Amino acid sequence: MTASPDDLRQAPLYRVLHALARDETSSEALTGACLAAIARDGHLNAWTWVDAAGALAAARASDARRAEGKPLGRLDGVPIAITDAFDVAGMPTSLGLPGHPGLAAEDAHVVRRLRGAGAVFLGKTNLDEAAFGTVGRNPHFGDVRNPLLPGRAAGGASAGSAAALAAGHAVVALGTDTLGAVRIPAAFCGLVGHKPTLGELSARGMAPALRRLDCPGLLARAVQDVGLVLPVLAGYDAGDPRSRKRRVPLAPPDWVPGELKAGVVSDLGALGVDAGVAENFSAIMARVAPVFGSALPVALEVAPLEVAATRRAALLLMEAEILAAHEARLGGASARLRGLLDFARRKSAADAAAAHRRLDGHVVQVRRLFEQFDVLLLPTVAAPPPAWGAEEPANLADLTALASLAGCPALSLPLPDGLGLQLVGAPGSDLRLLELAQVLASVADTGE
Amino acid sequence: MTASPDDLRQAPLYRVLHALARDETSSEALTGACLAAIARDGHLNAWTWVDAAGALAAARASDARRAEGKPLGRLDGVPIAITDAFDVAGMPTSLGLPGHPGLAAEDAHVVRRLRGAGAVFLGKTNLDEAAFGTVGRNPHFGDVRNPLLPGRAAGGASAGSAAALAAGHAVVALGTDTLGAVRIPAAFCGLVGHKPTLGELSARGMAPALRRLDCPGLLARAVQDVGLVLPVLAGYDAGDPRSRKRRVPLAPPDWVPGELKAGVVSDLGALGVDAGVAENFSAIMARVAPVFGSALPVALEVAPLEVAATRRAALLLMEAEILAAHEARLGGASARLRGLLDFARRKSAADAAAAHRRLDGHVVQVRRLFEQFDVLLLPTVAAPPPAWGAEEPANLADLTALASLAGCPALSLPLPDGLGLQLVGAPGSDLRLLELAQVLASVADTGE
Repeated sequence: MTASPDDLRQAPLYRVLHALARDETSSEALTGACLAAIARDGHLNAWTWVDAAGALAAARASDARRAEGKPLGRLDGVPIAITDAFDVAGMPTSLGLPGHPGLAAEDAHVVRRLRGAGAVFLGKTNLDEAAFGTVGRNPHFGDVRNPLLPGRAAGGASAGSAAALAAGHAVVALGTDTLGAVRIPAAFCGLVGHKPTLGELSARGMAPALRRLDCPGLLARAVQDVGLVLPVLAGYDAGDPRSRKRRVPLAPPDWVPGELKAGVVSDLGALGVDAGVAENFSAIMARVAPVFGSALPVALEVAPLEVAATRRAALLLMEAEILAAHEARLGGASARLRGLLDFARRKSAADAAAAHRRLDGHVVQVRRLFEQFDVLLLPTVAAPPPAWGAEEPANLADLTALASLAGCPALSLPLPDGLGLQLVGAPGSDLRLLELAQVLASVADTGE
Repeated sequence: MTASPDDLRQAPLYRVLHALARDETSSEALTGACLAAIARDGHLNAWTWVDAAGALAAARASDARRAEGKPLGRLDGVPIAITDAFDVAGMPTSLGLPGHPGLAAEDAHVVRRLRGAGAVFLGKTNLDEAAFGTVGRNPHFGDVRNPLLPGRAAGGASAGSAAALAAGHAVVALGTDTLGAVRIPAAFCGLVGHKPTLGELSARGMAPALRRLDCPGLLARAVQDVGLVLPVLAGYDAGDPRSRKRRVPLAPPDWVPGELKAGVVSDLGALGVDAGVAENFSAIMARVAPVFGSALPVALEVAPLEVAATRRAALLLMEAEILAAHEARLGGASARLRGLLDFARRKSAADAAAAHRRLDGHVVQVRRLFEQFDVLLLPTVAAPPPAWGAEEPANLADLTALASLAGCPALSLPLPDGLGLQLVGAPGSDLRLLELAQVLASVADTGE
């Protein structure tokens, strides 16, 4: 063995797979290094549950399979972090709420896929209470801290997965993204975050937030890592009513970046985006424009979409669904969360129907954008990560919600200072988005 | 001309197209015969709006195109009935409610498709108030009468389209089917009724009932007629958030009836189905069983699906959506309708979320059925058409809702006495269902 497990736990997945394949490390050594880092970093509050014995046993089993030349799948031996909104058989699913939910009997669909590919489960990562929030605030398991920018929020709701990955506790991480909960913490913690096309990954066994939008998503250190894990997770699941038989195969699409029509969101001021963020975004756009060849990116105003108002309609539906799905577990919830949910308690079924109609309208508006454009480019977050103690900015999820509300795939590339560059594609265009993201990352030198 | 327009207005579409193509009649003569029948049959209360001058002008234009050898499309010159829940440019959309909604500026998507194919629009047909009902009750335009079985209900909500077709006012008819509103009146009035796969036909310009289930549907005199019109209507529409790019081409599928696995619903008693209906259904099943070759139909119990309870959850969502979409027009609605909607007014957004979760569960249950079966066979209605004045049976839409709630295509073949034989397929299997229905109709001698 020639690669240090302590270096590898902080390396991209493609590097880790290479090291495992060449016997430069063992899964046991790598898993042990991750567990040691987790133990050292308790102050990050990144985890709600750690299964050290189970992880080491799984790692040893993986090493034995590898020694026999019979790995289970492409992730065999890779230590993974899973946000505590997914069921993992034999672990509790806290969803960031207090109380004793008992141990899950079955894996969530995407967790089963990871297990089948040989991944090593370290435990479950911390998140906003009921997965409802954007800064990683949790009074029961402690607020998640940002390893990249101490003193700043880690983002949310998949805060623990982002913090764990940024701190080198795992090699890739699973999160949930309903309105931005993978992309926001990815940006804040300097990671790549991918929210797939709605319905491409099964949400079965993921705690409901807002089912018509709920997506499992990935956090990773490199775009390429997302491309390695996505085919493991994707696929039709009869048990998820929104799962679809794939319309596009999970094989590299045939395209040329120079032929893509890119829409660059230009009215950032009208969206309440921080001036520094907007300036930074313009500079990046100037750098990446040549990628699009003669079909230069076109300025695009999205304020007419009124995303903020539609996102608020979605929040009402999310609150109502949290009440309907998790009411029994809200007894010990914070006064803050209960106060937020009380807003929905006063709303009627007709209010909910009106909110669904508003979301329907957004789907149509965004579809029309994709009649003109192949990809939209915009910042991931409207402001840098807020300092701890500062108020949670109200518009923090507006720029990510644009894609979520329409079921579109979106990918966030890390930029310095906790910012992100976001690519949004038409439903089903995940792979094209990944390839374009790799090109943009190399041109823009985003630090990915 | 050798075919009597009065015979043709009561003939299947395929016969009418043949007669028009051979100049055995003109669209003007046929349209005139339809209009005369409409005028004679005012007691049926089948229409809310008749545009005689417009229809005759359109018919003459069609005849002129045909004389020049330039027909617009496959329906050129065919008089069509459209339920008054669809927008037709230049006509009001009453939705069975009182007041003056003004004239629609644009055609609904499926109406535009019909117009583009040359169809002649006679006017709009009557329906249950707000398209909410199963018997054709309407205090503003009069209750719709059943031409086939006088004194009995015509079914609903697309009652006027069924009555118009049964009375020979038109050659085919457009209806809406959210929980059974095409199939129930089709059965009661002795017609074929088709509810397509959810999302295959755009619902844009159709008044919302429950958007996650709303489907335009067809009423016709022959299965073959549905197959002729469906390709005209179907297709992706960016303006409908649920419209999907087709997964199955609208071309005849490759299959052999003898290889189909059919599930025959066997626990009709547990579903509250009338004993006579159940007996009739068994007799039909015995007659059609040989169609399925060695793969004999399998008895299937569907009571565990608890469709009635899920249908009630859908009714709550439908009521809430009617309130949200049409509140301004409910002022003059009947006390009966307002009483029903007041039920939803007292329900919360969390109740609505719980109802959506219940519908999600049904989708998954039915998907699992289609892992075992290619087609389900069951009666269309649980009881014969009720006599006028009798209470609307509470379970009238249970057998049609089974498919609706899961987004599945379904087709009802007419049986004697206002009953129907229903075929339900997996989403996307509309064409296979049509072909199988033709085979079953010929074997069972259903009278279609």
